[in-house]
Amino acid sequence: MSDPDQNRVTPEVSFGQFQQLISQMYLEKDLARGVDGTFMWFMEEVGELASALRSGTHEERLGEFADVIAWLTTMANVVGVDLAEAVSLKYGSGCPGCNQFQCTCADAEKP
Amino acid sequence: MSDPDQNRVTPEVSFGQFQQLISQMYLEKDLARGVDGTFMWFMEEVGELASALRSGTHEERLGEFADVIAWLTTMANVVGVDLAEAVSLKYGSGCPGCNQFQCTCADAEKP
Repeated sequence: MSDPDQNRVTPEVSFGQFQQLISQMYLEKDLARGVDGTFMWFMEEVGELASALRSGTHEERLGEFADVIAWLTTMANVVGVDLAEAVSLKYGSGCPGCNQFQCTCADAEKP
Repeated sequence: MSDPDQNRVTPEVSFGQFQQLISQMYLEKDLARGVDGTFMWFMEEVGELASALRSGTHEERLGEFADVIAWLTTMANVVGVDLAEAVSLKYGSGCPGCNQFQCTCADAEKP
Protein backbone atom coordinates (compact mmCIF):
# COMPACT_ATOMS: atom_id res chain seq x y z
CA MET A 1 0.00 0.00 0.00
CA SER A 2 1.41 3.36 -0.98
CA ASP A 3 1.32 6.07 1.67
CA PRO A 4 2.43 9.50 0.47
CA ASP A 5 2.98 10.50 4.09
CA GLN A 6 5.12 7.52 5.02
CA ASN A 7 8.20 9.68 5.36
CA ARG A 8 6.46 12.27 7.50
CA VAL A 9 8.28 12.58 10.81
CA THR A 10 6.01 12.86 13.81
CA PRO A 11 7.24 15.68 16.03
CA GLU A 12 7.63 15.29 19.76
CA VAL A 13 4.82 17.18 21.48
CA SER A 14 4.53 17.34 25.25
CA PHE A 15 1.28 17.74 27.15
CA GLY A 16 2.73 20.92 28.64
CA GLN A 17 3.59 22.40 25.25
CA PHE A 18 0.17 21.58 23.85
CA GLN A 19 -1.67 22.91 26.90
CA GLN A 20 0.34 26.14 26.62
CA LEU A 21 -0.47 26.39 22.90
CA ILE A 22 -4.20 25.92 23.48
CA SER A 23 -4.09 28.42 26.32
CA GLN A 24 -2.33 30.97 24.12
CA MET A 25 -4.81 30.48 21.30
CA TYR A 26 -8.07 30.27 23.21
CA LEU A 27 -7.85 30.99 26.95
CA GLU A 28 -9.58 34.36 26.85
CA LYS A 29 -12.59 32.91 25.00
CA ASP A 30 -12.50 29.75 27.08
CA LEU A 31 -12.73 31.61 30.38
CA ALA A 32 -15.58 33.76 29.05
CA ARG A 33 -17.48 30.65 27.93
CA GLY A 34 -16.86 28.76 31.15
CA VAL A 35 -16.77 25.08 31.88
CA ASP A 36 -20.41 24.23 31.06
CA GLY A 37 -20.30 25.70 27.58
CA THR A 38 -16.86 24.24 26.97
CA PHE A 39 -18.12 20.81 27.97
CA MET A 40 -20.83 21.02 25.30
CA TRP A 41 -18.26 21.82 22.60
CA PHE A 42 -16.15 18.93 23.89
CA MET A 43 -19.11 16.56 23.63
CA GLU A 44 -19.84 17.69 20.09
CA GLU A 45 -16.29 16.72 19.17
CA VAL A 46 -16.67 13.38 20.95
CA GLY A 47 -19.68 12.73 18.73
CA GLU A 48 -17.66 13.57 15.64
CA LEU A 49 -14.92 11.22 16.83
CA ALA A 50 -17.49 8.44 17.23
CA SER A 51 -18.59 9.02 13.66
CA ALA A 52 -15.00 9.00 12.38
CA LEU A 53 -14.26 5.79 14.30
CA ARG A 54 -17.29 4.14 12.77
CA SER A 55 -16.86 5.17 9.16
CA GLY A 56 -14.11 7.78 8.75
CA THR A 57 -10.80 7.70 6.96
CA HIS A 58 -7.49 7.66 8.80
CA GLU A 59 -7.06 11.37 8.08
CA GLU A 60 -10.52 12.17 9.43
CA ARG A 61 -9.76 10.21 12.57
CA LEU A 62 -6.53 12.16 13.05
CA GLY A 63 -8.52 15.39 12.92
CA GLU A 64 -11.21 14.25 15.33
CA PHE A 65 -8.76 12.86 17.89
CA ALA A 66 -6.97 16.21 17.75
CA ASP A 67 -10.20 18.13 18.30
CA VAL A 68 -11.24 16.00 21.27
CA ILE A 69 -7.80 16.47 22.85
CA ALA A 70 -7.96 20.21 22.17
CA TRP A 71 -11.35 20.64 23.87
CA LEU A 72 -10.30 18.41 26.74
CA THR A 73 -7.22 20.62 27.11
CA THR A 74 -9.40 23.71 27.01
CA MET A 75 -11.50 22.34 29.87
CA ALA A 76 -8.31 21.64 31.82
CA ASN A 77 -7.21 25.24 31.23
CA VAL A 78 -10.55 26.59 32.43
CA VAL A 79 -10.37 24.68 35.73
CA GLY A 80 -6.60 24.98 36.20
CA VAL A 81 -5.66 21.32 35.77
CA ASP A 82 -2.16 20.48 34.51
CA LEU A 83 -2.56 17.53 32.15
CA ALA A 84 1.05 16.37 32.46
CA GLU A 85 0.65 16.30 36.24
CA ALA A 86 -2.67 14.47 35.85
CA VAL A 87 -1.33 11.64 33.70
CA SER A 88 1.90 11.35 35.66
CA LEU A 89 0.10 11.02 38.99
CA LYS A 90 -2.38 8.44 37.70
CA TYR A 91 -0.34 6.37 35.23
CA GLY A 92 3.30 7.24 35.88
CA SER A 93 3.75 4.29 38.24
CA GLY A 94 1.97 1.74 36.05
CA CYS A 95 -1.61 0.55 35.84
CA PRO A 96 -3.64 2.15 38.68
CA GLY A 97 -5.39 -1.19 39.18
CA CYS A 98 -2.45 -3.61 39.51
CA ASN A 99 0.57 -1.25 39.62
CA GLN A 100 2.18 -3.20 36.77
CA PHE A 101 3.61 -1.69 33.60
CA GLN A 102 1.89 -4.47 31.72
CA CYS A 103 -1.59 -4.67 33.19
CA THR A 104 -2.45 -7.91 34.96
CA CYS A 105 -5.93 -6.90 36.15
CA ALA A 106 -8.61 -9.53 35.49
CA ASP A 107 -10.37 -8.93 32.16
CA ALA A 108 -13.71 -8.34 33.85
CA GLU A 109 -12.19 -5.57 35.91
CA LYS A 110 -11.72 -2.06 34.81
CA PRO A 111 -9.80 -1.42 32.67
CA MET B 1 -3.82 28.73 51.07
CA SER B 2 -1.34 26.05 51.96
CA ASP B 3 -0.73 23.46 49.28
CA PRO B 4 1.39 20.53 50.38
CA ASP B 5 2.14 19.77 46.76
CA GLN B 6 3.20 23.24 45.80
CA ASN B 7 6.80 22.15 45.36
CA ARG B 8 5.89 19.16 43.23
CA VAL B 9 7.63 19.39 39.88
CA THR B 10 5.46 18.45 36.95
CA PRO B 11 7.42 16.13 34.68
CA GLU B 12 7.58 16.61 30.96
CA VAL B 13 5.42 13.97 29.31
CA SER B 14 5.07 13.72 25.55
CA PHE B 15 2.04 12.37 23.73
CA GLY B 16 4.32 9.76 22.20
CA GLN B 17 5.67 8.60 25.55
CA PHE B 18 2.20 8.38 27.05
CA GLN B 19 0.76 6.56 24.04
CA GLN B 20 3.64 4.07 24.25
CA LEU B 21 3.05 3.60 27.98
CA ILE B 22 -0.68 2.95 27.50
CA SER B 23 0.10 0.58 24.64
CA GLN B 24 2.60 -1.33 26.79
CA MET B 25 0.15 -1.57 29.67
CA TYR B 26 -3.07 -2.35 27.85
CA LEU B 27 -2.75 -2.99 24.10
CA GLU B 28 -3.40 -6.73 24.24
CA LYS B 29 -6.65 -6.23 26.15
CA ASP B 30 -7.55 -3.17 24.09
CA LEU B 31 -7.30 -5.04 20.79
CA ALA B 32 -9.37 -7.93 22.17
CA ARG B 33 -12.08 -5.51 23.35
CA GLY B 34 -12.11 -3.54 20.13
CA VAL B 35 -13.13 0.01 19.41
CA ASP B 36 -16.84 -0.24 20.32
CA GLY B 37 -16.22 -1.60 23.79
CA THR B 38 -13.35 0.80 24.33
CA PHE B 39 -15.59 3.71 23.37
CA MET B 40 -18.06 2.71 26.10
CA TRP B 41 -15.30 2.72 28.73
CA PHE B 42 -14.17 6.09 27.41
CA MET B 43 -17.68 7.49 27.76
CA GLU B 44 -17.96 6.20 31.30
CA GLU B 45 -14.84 8.20 32.14
CA VAL B 46 -16.23 11.25 30.38
CA GLY B 47 -19.25 10.99 32.67
CA GLU B 48 -17.00 10.80 35.71
CA LEU B 49 -15.10 13.85 34.46
CA ALA B 50 -18.38 15.76 34.13
CA SER B 51 -19.17 14.88 37.73
CA ALA B 52 -15.73 15.97 38.93
CA LEU B 53 -16.01 19.24 37.00
CA ARG B 54 -19.37 19.92 38.61
CA SER B 55 -18.55 19.08 42.19
CA GLY B 56 -15.16 17.40 42.53
CA THR B 57 -11.96 18.45 44.25
CA HIS B 58 -8.86 19.46 42.33
CA GLU B 59 -7.31 16.05 43.03
CA GLU B 60 -10.44 14.25 41.76
CA ARG B 61 -10.37 16.35 38.60
CA LEU B 62 -6.71 15.44 38.04
CA GLY B 63 -7.66 11.77 38.21
CA GLU B 64 -10.62 12.06 35.87
CA PHE B 65 -8.76 14.10 33.25
CA ALA B 66 -6.05 11.42 33.34
CA ASP B 67 -8.58 8.64 32.86
CA VAL B 68 -10.28 10.36 29.92
CA ILE B 69 -6.90 10.92 28.26
CA ALA B 70 -5.93 7.30 28.92
CA TRP B 71 -9.07 5.89 27.32
CA LEU B 72 -8.80 8.31 24.41
CA THR B 73 -5.23 7.12 23.96
CA THR B 74 -6.37 3.51 24.11
CA MET B 75 -8.86 4.20 21.31
CA ALA B 76 -6.07 5.80 19.28
CA ASN B 77 -3.94 2.68 19.83
CA VAL B 78 -6.77 0.40 18.70
CA VAL B 79 -7.24 2.26 15.40
CA GLY B 80 -3.55 3.10 14.84
CA VAL B 81 -3.74 6.86 15.27
CA ASP B 82 -0.60 8.70 16.44
CA LEU B 83 -1.80 11.42 18.82
CA ALA B 84 1.30 13.60 18.42
CA GLU B 85 0.80 13.51 14.65
CA ALA B 86 -2.90 14.30 15.13
CA VAL B 87 -2.41 17.41 17.26
CA SER B 88 0.54 18.63 15.22
CA LEU B 89 -1.35 18.39 11.94
CA LYS B 90 -4.45 20.13 13.29
CA TYR B 91 -3.05 22.72 15.72
CA GLY B 92 0.67 22.96 14.98
CA SER B 93 0.16 25.89 12.62
CA GLY B 94 -2.23 27.81 14.87
CA CYS B 95 -6.00 27.89 15.16
CA PRO B 96 -7.53 25.75 12.37
CA GLY B 97 -10.19 28.43 11.91
CA CYS B 98 -8.11 31.60 11.53
CA ASN B 99 -4.54 30.24 11.34
CA GLN B 100 -3.49 32.58 14.15
CA PHE B 101 -1.63 31.57 17.29
CA GLN B 102 -4.04 33.73 19.22
CA CYS B 103 -7.45 32.90 17.83
CA THR B 104 -9.28 35.74 16.09
CA CYS B 105 -12.33 33.75 14.99
CA ALA B 106 -15.65 35.46 15.74
CA ASP B 107 -17.06 34.36 19.11
CA ALA B 108 -20.11 32.79 17.49
CA GLU B 109 -17.89 30.59 15.38
CA LYS B 110 -16.38 27.36 16.45
CA PRO B 111 -14.29 27.35 18.56
